[in-house]
Order: sequence, then structure tokens, then C-alpha cells
Amino acid sequence: MTLFPEMIESGFQTSITGRAMEKGLLSLNTVNIRDFSKDLKHKKVDDYTYGGGAGLLMKADPVVDSFHSIEEKIGHKPRCIYLTPQGRTFTQEMAVDFAKEEELVFLCGHYEGIDERALDRVTTDWVSIGDYVLTGGELPAMVMMDAISRLVPGVLHNSESAETESFENGLLEYPQYTRPEVYDGSAVPKILLSGDHAKVDAYRHVQSLIRTRKYRPDLFETYVKEHPDEKIPPEVFEE
Amino acid sequence: MTLFPEMIESGFQTSITGRAMEKGLLSLNTVNIRDFSKDLKHKKVDDYTYGGGAGLLMKADPVVDSFHSIEEKIGHKPRCIYLTPQGRTFTQEMAVDFAKEEELVFLCGHYEGIDERALDRVTTDWVSIGDYVLTGGELPAMVMMDAISRLVPGVLHNSESAETESFENGLLEYPQYTRPEVYDGSAVPKILLSGDHAKVDAYRHVQSLIRTRKYRPDLFETYVKEHPDEKIPPEVFEE
Repeated sequence: MTLFPEMIESGFQTSITGRAMEKGLLSLNTVNIRDFSKDLKHKKVDDYTYGGGAGLLMKADPVVDSFHSIEEKIGHKPRCIYLTPQGRTFTQEMAVDFAKEEELVFLCGHYEGIDERALDRVTTDWVSIGDYVLTGGELPAMVMMDAISRLVPGVLHNSESAETESFENGLLEYPQYTRPEVYDGSAVPKILLSGDHAKVDAYRHVQSLIRTRKYRPDLFETYVKEHPDEKIPPEVFEE
Repeated sequence: MTLFPEMIESGFQTSITGRAMEKGLLSLNTVNIRDFSKDLKHKKVDDYTYGGGAGLLMKADPVVDSFHSIEEKIGHKPRCIYLTPQGRTFTQEMAVDFAKEEELVFLCGHYEGIDERALDRVTTDWVSIGDYVLTGGELPAMVMMDAISRLVPGVLHNSESAETESFENGLLEYPQYTRPEVYDGSAVPKILLSGDHAKVDAYRHVQSLIRTRKYRPDLFETYVKEHPDEKIPPEVFEE
């Protein structure tokens, strides 16, 4: 549900999500809230805020009516996510939860927001993608759709990919290297060329620990708490 | 810097950022990393990861070479933001800081990431938009571009808008209402129709406090600490 359906459609057609739609693993239906405006001449969907304030607010009725059109189409009331800085902060765990749903509706606000009475009637989840202000809900919806879509079985080419990436084990990813072996005078760490999988894994794990402690001490602390039996090597604590 | 320039371009042409480009307040130049591939036949930009692992990694040389093309064009080394879950978590304060720059380069990774040696050479800032995994850096770059662009003077119609919104005072926004006065049996809170600006402001502030305490106790705690002289009314703590 958006005032800018073409933005959502063009973004979703790219790369991995586009390929998944071609394969029939995902489908996207945009509903233009403007189509439900009762103002047949100008298709107005916004109006001034009661009590004053800069900017316009999206009116209740086109939002509620466009949600009802979805409800009628699918035969039940789907989960409806409102993208707002006032929502719960989106995390990978939430993405895993949302990925279990057959249908998800994303309600994208614009201008100053949406009349509270519409939100009361249609939304089930309020989600924020982070503590910053955006011009509308479209980009956050696309971010959530991307994070959730890649967890749907078959969407990623290699089932391993979804698991080995950042956050899946609570640590940041280790540095990675591809050909050539020496680039502009810098060589790939020798251990990665050794073919010794156990050594490579151990090296990468330590690199992940180093990075996580350095850049995200909050995640590092959680990891250490959750792995009380793991001996963290001293080099992780070196400056 | 991206493998999907059309995605960035179509997203940025929408709404507020599109209008700002027409007015000459912002400009966007996409650089297709694939154009700098040395593989003239297949324009390959990725390869297997040393040490093993699922998925492909973006090679160092097309990334570094495309950055150099930007450096040459603008005559100096610009700030270059790498979008990665390993980065500092993006906040509104960081948006304010980035908005002071004349030029910003966003480096969008895809596949499993980018060869570390390219990152060492071109990036100045590593930023994550949140703790979730996405298929590429394009959406996070668009999110950052949107948050930063709206802080550039003149981009928003009404200079007030950028300030009154969520986060700018550390609290979540109060509920908002527009016409009609009664929608589907629900009336707008009477105080908002009173015309008494001081009362409206006080009412809204209490509503912001209630919401923030309920949905974002972390922000509420910070607000209370930073406003030691403010008396928080008891209804804020009611369940």
C-alpha cells in the first residue's frame, strides 16, 4: 500500500528478488492508495493536521479502503506492517519470523504520516528500520521485503549463503579475498590458500571476533555471554 | 558505485529527492562497477572466495578503478561510504554530519561482499543501516541518501518539517489526525480542535512521552536523563 507503486516495483524487480518472482517463489502486488481517494477530481489523499503543524497527513479513508480491497482479495485479514520511526526496530530475528507468513502487507506512509484512526484499524505491526528519518515508508518497506525474501527457501541460489553471512551467528563477517593472489602489492593471507579447512575456519572465526569486538562491542558482549565455554584467544583483545 | 545503477536512479527520481534534483539542489551520478571490469568479453566482476565459502566475491580492481574515475572527475578524494552489516549503525546524528559534505560516494557491495584489499584502498566510512542481512548495498545506500538529502537546505518544502519529526527531539511522534472530524465513529481528540496552541503543544508532548516510554524505553530513558528539570506527568507512567 503506497502512493509510489512504481518505486516499489522497479526496486523489487532487480537481482535476487526479481529472479525469485520469475521462478514463482515470491509475488508482489502494489496497491496505489490514491486509487481509493473519494476525491474523484484531484485524487487528493492528504489534508492539514488538526491542531496545526507543518506538512500534510494522509487521510484515514483511502488507507482503510485500500486495505479492505486486499482483505477481500485474499479472503482474510493479513498481517499489516506500518513502516514508522515509532515502530519496533527491525532485526534479523524479526525477518526470520516474518518470512514464515504467506502474505505480508506493507503500509507506506508519506508526508507527515497517516491519520491515527486508519492505523488503529488496519495495522498489526509497527516496524522501524533504524533511528533516522526518511521521506516515506517505501524505502523501509523495500528493505524489509529484501531481508525477508532472501530467507524464503529457494530464493538464494545456494542454501548455505543465507546462513554464513553476518549476524547469523551473532558476529560480524571476517575479511574476504578473491583473485588475484597479489593485488597492488597486497597478498591474500597465506592461511586462506592452505587448503586446510579446519585452520581456515579457525582463522576466520578469530577475524570475526576481532572485528566484532572492535566495531560492535555490543554484539561481542552478547556473543561472549552466550558462549561461556568458548576460550577467546588473546589476540582478539589486542589493540 | 554499484552493479545496479538503474535501481538507484529510479528510486532517487521519486518524490522529494527527484524534485530536489530538478531544482538543482542535489545531483546523482551512478558509476557502474561492471564498466571497469578488465574482462572485456564477459564483464565479470566477481570470483570465488579464497579459503572457500558459498557465493562469489566482488574483485578488487574494478572497485578501485571505478573509485579512481570519480576521484579524477572531482579532483580530490571524496568520503566513501561502504554499506555493510559490519559498519557503524546509521543514526540521525550521522545523517546530519554527512549532510555537510559536498560530495559523498556510496559503495554498494553485492554477492558475498568485496575483496578486503579494495575496501582498504577506497573506503573512509563503514555504515550499516541496521542489524539485518540484505542482498546488496543498493537499498541501504538509497536509505542513507534519502535521510541525508532531506537535511539539505531547500529540499523539504517547509523548513519546519525536518525539525518537528520523530527523533529530532529524541522522542517518538505523537498521534496525528486530519479531516474528517469523525471517521467511522472515531472523533479527533477535542483539544486538537481548541485552537489553543499552548494546550495542543502540551497535549502532544505528553502523547510523545507516553509513546516513547511504551515503545522505545531506551529513548525515553535518555530523554529523561537529558531533561533533569522537566516534570514528567504521572499519566506517562500509567499502563
